[in-house]
Amino acid sequence: MSTIPWQERPANISDVVWRYNENPIIQRDAIPSSNSIFNSAVVPFKDGYAGVFRCDNKAVQMNIFAGFSKDGINWEINHEPITFGAGNTQMIESDYKYDPRVTFIEDRYWITWCNGYHGPTIGIGYTFDFKEFFQCENAFLPFNRNGVLFPEKINGKYAMLSRPSDNGHTPFGDIYLSYSPDMKYWGEHRCVMKASPFEDSAWQCTKIGAGSVPILTDEGWLMFYHGVINTCNGFRYSLGASILDKDNPNNVKYRTQPYLLSPQTTYECVGDVPNVIFPCATLHSLEEDKVAIYYGAADTVTALAFGHISEILKFTKENSL
Amino acid sequence: MSTIPWQERPANISDVVWRYNENPIIQRDAIPSSNSIFNSAVVPFKDGYAGVFRCDNKAVQMNIFAGFSKDGINWEINHEPITFGAGNTQMIESDYKYDPRVTFIEDRYWITWCNGYHGPTIGIGYTFDFKEFFQCENAFLPFNRNGVLFPEKINGKYAMLSRPSDNGHTPFGDIYLSYSPDMKYWGEHRCVMKASPFEDSAWQCTKIGAGSVPILTDEGWLMFYHGVINTCNGFRYSLGASILDKDNPNNVKYRTQPYLLSPQTTYECVGDVPNVIFPCATLHSLEEDKVAIYYGAADTVTALAFGHISEILKFTKENSL
Amino acid sequence: MSTIPWQERPANISDVVWRYNENPIIQRDAIPSSNSIFNSAVVPFKDGYAGVFRCDNKAVQMNIFAGFSKDGINWEINHEPITFGAGNTQMIESDYKYDPRVTFIEDRYWITWCNGYHGPTIGIGYTFDFKEFFQCENAFLPFNRNGVLFPEKINGKYAMLSRPSDNGHTPFGDIYLSYSPDMKYWGEHRCVMKASPFEDSAWQCTKIGAGSVPILTDEGWLMFYHGVINTCNGFRYSLGASILDKDNPNNVKYRTQPYLLSPQTTYECVGDVPNVIFPCATLHSLEEDKVAIYYGAADTVTALAFGHISEILKFTKENSL
Amino acid sequence: MSTIPWQERPANISDVVWRYNENPIIQRDAIPSSNSIFNSAVVPFKDGYAGVFRCDNKAVQMNIFAGFSKDGINWEINHEPITFGAGNTQMIESDYKYDPRVTFIEDRYWITWCNGYHGPTIGIGYTFDFKEFFQCENAFLPFNRNGVLFPEKINGKYAMLSRPSDNGHTPFGDIYLSYSPDMKYWGEHRCVMKASPFEDSAWQCTKIGAGSVPILTDEGWLMFYHGVINTCNGFRYSLGASILDKDNPNNVKYRTQPYLLSPQTTYECVGDVPNVIFPCATLHSLEEDKVAIYYGAADTVTALAFGHISEILKFTKENSL
Amino acid sequence: MSTIPWQERPANISDVVWRYNENPIIQRDAIPSSNSIFNSAVVPFKDGYAGVFRCDNKAVQMNIFAGFSKDGINWEINHEPITFGAGNTQMIESDYKYDPRVTFIEDRYWITWCNGYHGPTIGIGYTFDFKEFFQCENAFLPFNRNGVLFPEKINGKYAMLSRPSDNGHTPFGDIYLSYSPDMKYWGEHRCVMKASPFEDSAWQCTKIGAGSVPILTDEGWLMFYHGVINTCNGFRYSLGASILDKDNPNNVKYRTQPYLLSPQTTYECVGDVPNVIFPCATLHSLEEDKVAIYYGAADTVTALAFGHISEILKFTKENSL
Amino acid sequence: MSTIPWQERPANISDVVWRYNENPIIQRDAIPSSNSIFNSAVVPFKDGYAGVFRCDNKAVQMNIFAGFSKDGINWEINHEPITFGAGNTQMIESDYKYDPRVTFIEDRYWITWCNGYHGPTIGIGYTFDFKEFFQCENAFLPFNRNGVLFPEKINGKYAMLSRPSDNGHTPFGDIYLSYSPDMKYWGEHRCVMKASPFEDSAWQCTKIGAGSVPILTDEGWLMFYHGVINTCNGFRYSLGASILDKDNPNNVKYRTQPYLLSPQTTYECVGDVPNVIFPCATLHSLEEDKVAIYYGAADTVTALAFGHISEILKFTKENSL
Repeated sequence: MSTIPWQERPANISDVVWRYNENPIIQRDAIPSSNSIFNSAVVPFKDGYAGVFRCDNKAVQMNIFAGFSKDGINWEINHEPITFGAGNTQMIESDYKYDPRVTFIEDRYWITWCNGYHGPTIGIGYTFDFKEFFQCENAFLPFNRNGVLFPEKINGKYAMLSRPSDNGHTPFGDIYLSYSPDMKYWGEHRCVMKASPFEDSAWQCTKIGAGSVPILTDEGWLMFYHGVINTCNGFRYSLGASILDKDNPNNVKYRTQPYLLSPQTTYECVGDVPNVIFPCATLHSLEEDKVAIYYGAADTVTALAFGHISEILKFTKENSL
Repeated sequence: MSTIPWQERPANISDVVWRYNENPIIQRDAIPSSNSIFNSAVVPFKDGYAGVFRCDNKAVQMNIFAGFSKDGINWEINHEPITFGAGNTQMIESDYKYDPRVTFIEDRYWITWCNGYHGPTIGIGYTFDFKEFFQCENAFLPFNRNGVLFPEKINGKYAMLSRPSDNGHTPFGDIYLSYSPDMKYWGEHRCVMKASPFEDSAWQCTKIGAGSVPILTDEGWLMFYHGVINTCNGFRYSLGASILDKDNPNNVKYRTQPYLLSPQTTYECVGDVPNVIFPCATLHSLEEDKVAIYYGAADTVTALAFGHISEILKFTKENSL
Repeated sequence: MSTIPWQERPANISDVVWRYNENPIIQRDAIPSSNSIFNSAVVPFKDGYAGVFRCDNKAVQMNIFAGFSKDGINWEINHEPITFGAGNTQMIESDYKYDPRVTFIEDRYWITWCNGYHGPTIGIGYTFDFKEFFQCENAFLPFNRNGVLFPEKINGKYAMLSRPSDNGHTPFGDIYLSYSPDMKYWGEHRCVMKASPFEDSAWQCTKIGAGSVPILTDEGWLMFYHGVINTCNGFRYSLGASILDKDNPNNVKYRTQPYLLSPQTTYECVGDVPNVIFPCATLHSLEEDKVAIYYGAADTVTALAFGHISEILKFTKENSL
Repeated sequence: MSTIPWQERPANISDVVWRYNENPIIQRDAIPSSNSIFNSAVVPFKDGYAGVFRCDNKAVQMNIFAGFSKDGINWEINHEPITFGAGNTQMIESDYKYDPRVTFIEDRYWITWCNGYHGPTIGIGYTFDFKEFFQCENAFLPFNRNGVLFPEKINGKYAMLSRPSDNGHTPFGDIYLSYSPDMKYWGEHRCVMKASPFEDSAWQCTKIGAGSVPILTDEGWLMFYHGVINTCNGFRYSLGASILDKDNPNNVKYRTQPYLLSPQTTYECVGDVPNVIFPCATLHSLEEDKVAIYYGAADTVTALAFGHISEILKFTKENSL
Repeated sequence: MSTIPWQERPANISDVVWRYNENPIIQRDAIPSSNSIFNSAVVPFKDGYAGVFRCDNKAVQMNIFAGFSKDGINWEINHEPITFGAGNTQMIESDYKYDPRVTFIEDRYWITWCNGYHGPTIGIGYTFDFKEFFQCENAFLPFNRNGVLFPEKINGKYAMLSRPSDNGHTPFGDIYLSYSPDMKYWGEHRCVMKASPFEDSAWQCTKIGAGSVPILTDEGWLMFYHGVINTCNGFRYSLGASILDKDNPNNVKYRTQPYLLSPQTTYECVGDVPNVIFPCATLHSLEEDKVAIYYGAADTVTALAFGHISEILKFTKENSL
Repeated sequence: MSTIPWQERPANISDVVWRYNENPIIQRDAIPSSNSIFNSAVVPFKDGYAGVFRCDNKAVQMNIFAGFSKDGINWEINHEPITFGAGNTQMIESDYKYDPRVTFIEDRYWITWCNGYHGPTIGIGYTFDFKEFFQCENAFLPFNRNGVLFPEKINGKYAMLSRPSDNGHTPFGDIYLSYSPDMKYWGEHRCVMKASPFEDSAWQCTKIGAGSVPILTDEGWLMFYHGVINTCNGFRYSLGASILDKDNPNNVKYRTQPYLLSPQTTYECVGDVPNVIFPCATLHSLEEDKVAIYYGAADTVTALAFGHISEILKFTKENSL
């Protein structure tokens, strides 16, 4: 029996990542107020799982909600959004919250999200119990999106991936890494991964952004990310994997030239924003060599895909950009 | 038995507006020449209903056609577009006609539409019998769209909502109200409703436009409208409701912060222009507390939704922007 | 002696329009608060002249000011902007006012300007004495600029030229004519003159706008206008002339293919907006066969040019587009 | 029995072109490496058919692959892309290859495609046997797409249709014809067909491009092409037909005002680029009065449509723009 | 005698800021390699002044150079750009350097500039002697410009104004304030001043950016800044003043609605980028009530303006936005 | 005495290229109809010089005119544009003509220009006597500009530089080389020189285009070209030099990283298009080691600069990008 959500690879599929056959696992109207539930994050919690979910309401206001699950597949999401108390600051202004990620570091669960403060930037918060939540200083100046924390300190400092943006549907985007001694002040910003040349890997030629919290493996940090191509009919978002150096994650060791998953099913191709696969979290077991990837589909629903970590690492090394 | 097209709310739905379960009611090829039939208007006529339909032909030329129905659901649409004689002017130039609305005032049925005269503006015409039609002076200079008449004079003057535009896929748009003593000269232009701030109600943050002819209720004029959000993959059009002051409809009393209907079905999400719900007309009975909303779906077909007027008024008041 | 401001054509110039040799006649700082004074209008008044001047202040807020002159060249401009009482409406909202034109019709001086009401549109006002001013309903919905009244009624109705625009630095623009029985309601909108094909007359290929109040001549209405070309370094505005049919000014009889004046002097080429000649008014004497054209230069100062009306008419007919 | 792939017109369809009922004939994953297979070309070859297929791999790199079929419907496509030896030049640089067309002239099969050489331009190659391939000089400077050869020399010279472009998602595009004495140097460029005015035929108002190799008929050269409309949600590509003068194909004799086929099925409306029908080839028999049109659908799969040549010619003449 | 560069206000000028009559003080070719010298910073140093100058060379590469002056007007600028050793980091990558500011804090001179690191961001360096220079970590992620340090710690932390940007000719821009305990890690980002509404103060309606190092006065921090308006012929940059709260400079107490100086002279209106006044530094004496403002003119030369601090404070308070 | 126009380098200038002190040599109104005369070409002819001049008329229609000079400085330009007879084709359609270049090859003077044929492309013509002119086939498909012929055949073929463009104010542009056996058919297109990275040489980072006919020197072909930077206030055009391999001019041996001349004088910075230096021709004497460079200034007038060829070659080699 699996310690994480799991489904074996279907016989007719040879890809290293495959979809759950009952996708989407969370429908757009899973809570009464929601227009859509997608781009959400989960972690092991107690004897099951907890999560932070992006639920846009029917006014299409963006906010994040806590949720719980026994099996990682069937979720109970709170009907009211998370409210935050003051963490390391009184300044907890927030015009909107979206695209959360969650990771446990040391003694608590840290949440990062795209926080509306005169434009999008990276909000930070924490909880010990998914009941009470505290909001910290924004990590960066606007405009920024896709802030993803490493699950442990690197050389004694917190480390966060992010993607500097502009104030609209940004047509560019590279992944940077920043460090903090205290989750309040950030610096040592490094450019880590850039969008690829069109000729080399077009699915990730317009912009890329960190997806899931990196997983420490023998090969380094395994990090799933999204890549975007700008077609004549808009952006298409696909899933890739990268391996960052264990000790110095500023260095990308490998990165998939092919995508691992691109929008091909109806729930990925039809919805509020067609043709979007947007990974925000994984559950994984190194012992069982399994990873379950949670991703938003078409900016409307939440879906699940699976893979063997060893296979993904091997594939990434052998098909590196 | 209902005096308007009607279907009770399904048991599993709690929304105040719900879709007809045999949507779309008019297919794209309902007449031999048509590429698509959508964004169309209906009115009670004799012992049934008449309508003016936007049928784009297979050259994708836009024109309006008369049609008739006993039940408001099954329609016979003429195979030839409406031809107009001269109404209050000889100048009945028209490069194209689209997005008609119809209302009866005093002694005749007035039709407004987007009329091609060196760009889009508001065309006006009338008929007594849906056989013979007369075209009047354009209401405004280009560029304008979504001209919707009130069904009776306001303080002795005709009143028309419209949305000033530019000459392309306009990325802005607010609703104005203008008055005329004679359906020929227009003035007293007032800004009535603006697109909302992104943070407050994103589905209507790019532009809004009047939809159906306002319905006079105890609360004021109930007017359905469309709101647009500009996603990274294009515009998405949803349905909202507003209540304008009875005596001075320049004043918006209430307006839905949540949408009433957004594109979620296949016929709304897939078609010539994906993700479009575009209301142009209602049939309603205040006595029976019912309204049937006609809307174009995906710029391809015509669909129908229902609601109880009292519920919609209540919802609009309780969820006002 | 001349009844209007006048200077003979210099010996070395053969053009039909020539500049005043002491241009600019009004400097940018002619009143204490002003950043710039340009695009302004003058009329004969009492034993001299009155004018309505666009004076942007040093916050670059746009407003219009009354001014007076004995000779049409040396002007005393009020230090406070015009304040308006209610004319034919209580709705005299105005976020800004710019680019005025003035003409006398029947019993009063009518002023039109670009009025800020949720974007630019055409404001209308009147005065009997240039001391007390009254504001009427805006002529049109936004977005519109360059509203210019005919100096007498046409077939019993007021007639106004205008240029429908968008809400920014509009990259298109044609001249329309609209009619009103009462200066309150407007209709019978006709497209009169369009920007020219690039190959035929590039200086007016991007947009055109009415300039001065038309002058009734034996050939028809002589109307000076501006034409714009979009260069790789921005818009360049030049001066042209048109002759509209006397009885039906919807018809353009002639229109200069060459410009009459293009930005060539330092005060036209260097300033807040380089390379702008923008005519807003004339003083003229048909008896003396003279016209003095007032124009804004580089959106900074006000300048003057002269011509013989008969020569301009002849030139326009012989060099018509 | 038919000598080309064929399926009779369904009873419920009256259109002159109809779809194969088992579309798409080639799935996106028909070869292991492919993300999508579309916009591809076929020709009679030996006792069956050969083809050149655009297969984008999972890195979304574009390349062309040879394939073979007995019946024109079931295809075996090579798993490795075509490699080219030097034809009439040593310069066979190519950053990418896409949208191939194929035709037999005199002694060999000529292939044209969009070739990446500092941007898209027209690559030319040939083969005698679909095993060994030779690449020639690019026909034109960048930026160009949709190069289509006539199947025989015109007045002693090779003739190629193409569509000059820019370096992105070009928002304009007309069809030109160029000539070459030797497949190396090209000249005598003529503009043949332009995008249509919006009012006349909106489906082809943004840009048009040659599709299939022209077929010589009694009426002239029958050439299928694609037309594009720019909607608020992106480009929509449809299919039209044109008839070019036999002796001087610079002259367009007729051209369909209505489209023959527009995106209406799921496989045409949902995919990597929604709403695309893109014809690249035909198989045809003048004797049997049949044509089978191969087209890419949604930039994802390959589909097939049929028609009687005489009916298409008649329709084109009777419904000409 | 003045302790700073000074020239009395000319008799004919009543403005609170006036130009030096021998402007520009530094010509574009003041050093052999330079194309232009502008947007530069000066400080008192020893018995005279030192400065850091933006000198673009004739390849139009941007770099910063040290310079020295006895009187603040006549400058000797080094012919070689500043080279930096490692300060608090080994990462001293820099594709280009421009728009420096300088201030003395505690024991050294701190320099900030726009530093090219995968796009523009804020570089930080220091020197004790203007001979040896050390580069620190960039303050922020790209994209950012106009980083200006406060001349002393605020509540124990370094404080820096900056303007988040995008990667091109950014059409938006507000001023933020960030804090650092150590000049390495930054946080507590606050939005301080935004571009103004067009109607209120158009010269600063497109974007604003911090200019000179704030001066501590009795009224608070006096900070000169630039404001930009987007005209139809490009951006125009003018000079304004703001007063920030002494203890909490996140709060803007006053800010000039009128500009203090706009491009009006030839050297401000004609040059590599016309119509630019860009302040980067002041020299001042509170005792003598004088300030000398150094500004780049037309992105080509360096100019000087003067004012009495008390008058500027009074003007700012009385003419606040 | 010099065999070409010449003026020694002023004592105070150390640059390798310097301006003529009586610039501009041709005023905008040098012929009665002209708005501007610029971007023009000259060659030795008989005992003096002939030229082909771009004279835009006062309708701003672009055309080319023949002119003659004894000294290369004082020019008599015909008052009527060149009319062409049929050269190697009957197709001599031309919507406009601009930016000519001229060179003598074998037995005649060849002229190339930007020719309006459904957009800009490269027109070709020839003359034996500058009285009678013949037009040939356009070299390329639109969109193209800046076609410049080599003054002798390369490996038996005519060779032409050009810059593929789009149909507007193209924001990109590289220099290509194409070959023709017969001045009718062109091929063997090679990319020769690209716009530079911003960091390396910003004055030529947006686009570059061939300027003058290449001069064969011991170092290779010396070719002056223009480079463009896109500032926030539009394009700025400067002058650079390149040295192409003698036998294979596809190869660039050297190319100036610094510009040789940038817009700095009033006649280069102020005019119809500010900040433009656009070289189109040289006169030169290898024996005397002199070159006179003719360039358009501000798209308004024609100017002249001088240099010693050996110094320019040396400078280009020592300051190569």
